Amino acid sequence: MVAERIEAALREAIEAVRGPSCPPGLDKAIEYAVFPGGARIRPKICLAVADACCEDYPAISDAAATSIELLHCASLVHDDLPCFDDSPLRRGRKSLHKAFGEPLAVLVGDALIVLAFQTLVRGTVQAPHRLPILMEIIAGSVGMPGGIVAGQAWECEPEVNLSDYQQSKTGSLFAAATAAGAAAAGVEAGPWRALGEQIGGAYQVVDDILDVAGDAEQLGKPTGQDEARDHPSSVRELGLDGARRHFESIMAGVVATIPPCPGAARLEAQVIKEASRFLPAALAEHAA
Amino acid sequence: MVAERIEAALREAIEAVRGPSCPPGLDKAIEYAVFPGGARIRPKICLAVADACCEDYPAISDAAATSIELLHCASLVHDDLPCFDDSPLRRGRKSLHKAFGEPLAVLVGDALIVLAFQTLVRGTVQAPHRLPILMEIIAGSVGMPGGIVAGQAWECEPEVNLSDYQQSKTGSLFAAATAAGAAAAGVEAGPWRALGEQIGGAYQVVDDILDVAGDAEQLGKPTGQDEARDHPSSVRELGLDGARRHFESIMAGVVATIPPCPGAARLEAQVIKEASRFLPAALAEHAA
Repeated sequence: MVAERIEAALREAIEAVRGPSCPPGLDKAIEYAVFPGGARIRPKICLAVADACCEDYPAISDAAATSIELLHCASLVHDDLPCFDDSPLRRGRKSLHKAFGEPLAVLVGDALIVLAFQTLVRGTVQAPHRLPILMEIIAGSVGMPGGIVAGQAWECEPEVNLSDYQQSKTGSLFAAATAAGAAAAGVEAGPWRALGEQIGGAYQVVDDILDVAGDAEQLGKPTGQDEARDHPSSVRELGLDGARRHFESIMAGVVATIPPCPGAARLEAQVIKEASRFLPAALAEHAA
Repeated sequence: MVAERIEAALREAIEAVRGPSCPPGLDKAIEYAVFPGGARIRPKICLAVADACCEDYPAISDAAATSIELLHCASLVHDDLPCFDDSPLRRGRKSLHKAFGEPLAVLVGDALIVLAFQTLVRGTVQAPHRLPILMEIIAGSVGMPGGIVAGQAWECEPEVNLSDYQQSKTGSLFAAATAAGAAAAGVEAGPWRALGEQIGGAYQVVDDILDVAGDAEQLGKPTGQDEARDHPSSVRELGLDGARRHFESIMAGVVATIPPCPGAARLEAQVIKEASRFLPAALAEHAA
């Protein structure tokens, strides 16, 4: 049901800017960038936190979750560009620039960033005083100096600290997902960042493991990229077993970072369930 | 004095996201993208309208003007990329991707879009109820279906209507400059759009004329690009003399579009003065 809620909110956000006055190629390409999606992990976490905090305006939680997922989609489109990962595949089909060309891939990423913030504005009409804090949380997680663009920019540097890189490239948007979920419900956001950072950290370790030990077809994207592109990676730094242990140690502590809230027990169960899906069954067997 | 005000506001916006935690390349590249600037026409228009409307919070006018200029800088950086205009020069020196590489050029554009909205949030703390309308005006002018990204995307289409193309690629941000200037001052924005559209239209015609009859060194960017890239252009559609007549006819009507406001006379003088600068002296002689 949460999955349907997320798809409906994303659909509504996209439809608000499509239409006959839009250049047809851009119109098709933005649809392609957002649907069908991946696991929608970030918006799920955002809504789970809003629910645990007893959301009073579901439209605001939807806007926060949607905004975060649109920014995630934007980052994938730009990240796949020839000047970065030059990835031919994404979500099991052609990457956006392979399907629509590089110019539209650049523009779709730009348009999704703008749309993410437009969605926040439209979604907060019932309680506009929540807009500034949501903007601050979400914009901060993608912008400079420590958001996704900074994470990507670390790839252009000769020396990188693995934890700074992962925190900005992945952790920041997960931290925004939990913080924005709380802020959308009118709850103080700060104490919720640690939970998102932990989940994001675990997710990134798994992503690094799958890049080495996963199945490209199942993942819907090429593997072996961190080594090929000389990207920092938990596996490259700790080895495969070391990375698995690192994942387990993060997961062992994650529920302890959930701040006191009315729906803490429910949220704890959800976090454990979602995280168990990070490591696909095949890989768990492979490691056993 | 307005020029200094704009540079100071841009400086403050940029410094808010720079610093030691930022990847050094990204940090340098964002500075390069914004300073030194071009004519800063859009923020000047925005502040002129805010002044004519008796701005009550100068910080909010500054935020609106800055946000618009940052988005303009973002559009130049992405527009110069090899997959679009592949321009080696901008503002008389290397374009950003020539100086810093394509990856940082993509990221700087993304970061500037995010920063534009962060700047609006930070600048409206004294009157946060003005944030939603400013966000709506400014985001709409760059996003889908009719903002700058749509204008760029029209370049990817086999058939383009010149006026749709120019309105989205150029007119939209000029319309946002006048509308946001009014909204920043707490005045109804709608009636102010037409003025920006007219100024933007005149500006675009001049840009098209200079692309054919201008001096590359003086302009700080290559000429002859519309023909070479098969971009729609007033000169290509109307001829050089036709384009000049079109410019004059727009200018003849522009002051009539200024809505009633306390500073109308002052604004009228400014609009005429700024517009007279559009057509450089050399070109006016050439045409005479």
